[in-house]
Amino acid sequence: MRLIHFPLDPGSRKIRLLLAEKGVECAYAEERPWERREEFLALNPAGEVPVLVDGEVVVSDAQAIAEYLEETHPSPPLMGGDPKARAEVRRLTAWFDRKFCREVTAHLVEEKIGKRLSGRGYPDSGAVRAGHANIHTHLDYIAWLIDRRSWLAGEQFSLADIAAAAQLSAVDYVGDVPWDAHDGARDWYARIKSRPSFRPLLADHIPGAPPPKHYADLDF
Amino acid sequence: MRLIHFPLDPGSRKIRLLLAEKGVECAYAEERPWERREEFLALNPAGEVPVLVDGEVVVSDAQAIAEYLEETHPSPPLMGGDPKARAEVRRLTAWFDRKFCREVTAHLVEEKIGKRLSGRGYPDSGAVRAGHANIHTHLDYIAWLIDRRSWLAGEQFSLADIAAAAQLSAVDYVGDVPWDAHDGARDWYARIKSRPSFRPLLADHIPGAPPPKHYADLDF
Repeated sequence: MRLIHFPLDPGSRKIRLLLAEKGVECAYAEERPWERREEFLALNPAGEVPVLVDGEVVVSDAQAIAEYLEETHPSPPLMGGDPKARAEVRRLTAWFDRKFCREVTAHLVEEKIGKRLSGRGYPDSGAVRAGHANIHTHLDYIAWLIDRRSWLAGEQFSLADIAAAAQLSAVDYVGDVPWDAHDGARDWYARIKSRPSFRPLLADHIPGAPPPKHYADLDF
Repeated sequence: MRLIHFPLDPGSRKIRLLLAEKGVECAYAEERPWERREEFLALNPAGEVPVLVDGEVVVSDAQAIAEYLEETHPSPPLMGGDPKARAEVRRLTAWFDRKFCREVTAHLVEEKIGKRLSGRGYPDSGAVRAGHANIHTHLDYIAWLIDRRSWLAGEQFSLADIAAAAQLSAVDYVGDVPWDAHDGARDWYARIKSRPSFRPLLADHIPGAPPPKHYADLDF
């Protein structure tokens, strides 16, 4: 199995965490999707990472990959045990994959690092301000859920926690998560950050854009 | 079962088509999500349609609803028969739900009708031009797929066809699908448009924003 990914891309991070949590052996190949290499576009005409290559099966779209891995490697289950539980996992996974990404990650990670790497200019300060303003509601929502449940979607660790941590870890890489104002979300993130599956993400290092010191620190 | 939806919202259209294809009895309640009614936000804090209420189970996010319906009403199967086939259905479903929506539907339907209904001003002409420019690639991609397969994701009609038709039907409501330049996509759409599941969508009528004459015409 081979995953084509970009280290700071939250969809790629979600699948790296999922593969590690499931203990699936996988080779990793880094792709800079904005270069639009022909061989890469032939695998995924959408031009987006991540892409999973499993023998003759090629899967793209992060959530399609997650569903594929849950079906082909069901143990440990990470999407809930029945349709109702799975609906809650999928609802929250979509919340972080899309709503959080659109309102926060795109404004901060894309503006601060994505634009520079792909030569599309400088961060838009209005966008960065919007990202800083929007993140609080999401951190409050995490704390609200964790007040009522052990993990985001229920009593079991699930893809919803993975999806949320994938987004937050990318924002944390640019130093923009206000942990000090959000104890509840920090306690939840500290539990995830200490999982063995998280170690490779904490070792990520984008040339020319190092993470802040607390990024890899388990006691942040 | 009750679906809370907005007629022109493509995610809502996707679930209406899916329910009809599966022959599931369902009550429909129209919601104008931009009004942010408290009772609605209590059901879905993301503030988005569609939301499915099935007894005590509340599911939001259109794809989470689709997966829930496929699990609870597996007949007829609309997501493929094995992990590989399902991966292709989910990849293309995500293509239309997100890529097509972002590059086309948001620029045309949201600008021309969404903004007016929610009192957020007038269409941005740059956005509308971008939508008109972007739609051709997508219609070409549909034709390319249909040259090789009976339906978008393979030999069986699937959620991928439903997701694509949900987006295109919303754009067709504002008269912005250049059918004359895209015979392959038109032939595929004509097959879907004539399915009984499509009839309620063709009867949709937004007060003050009637569809063009060809919208409900099976010979368009």
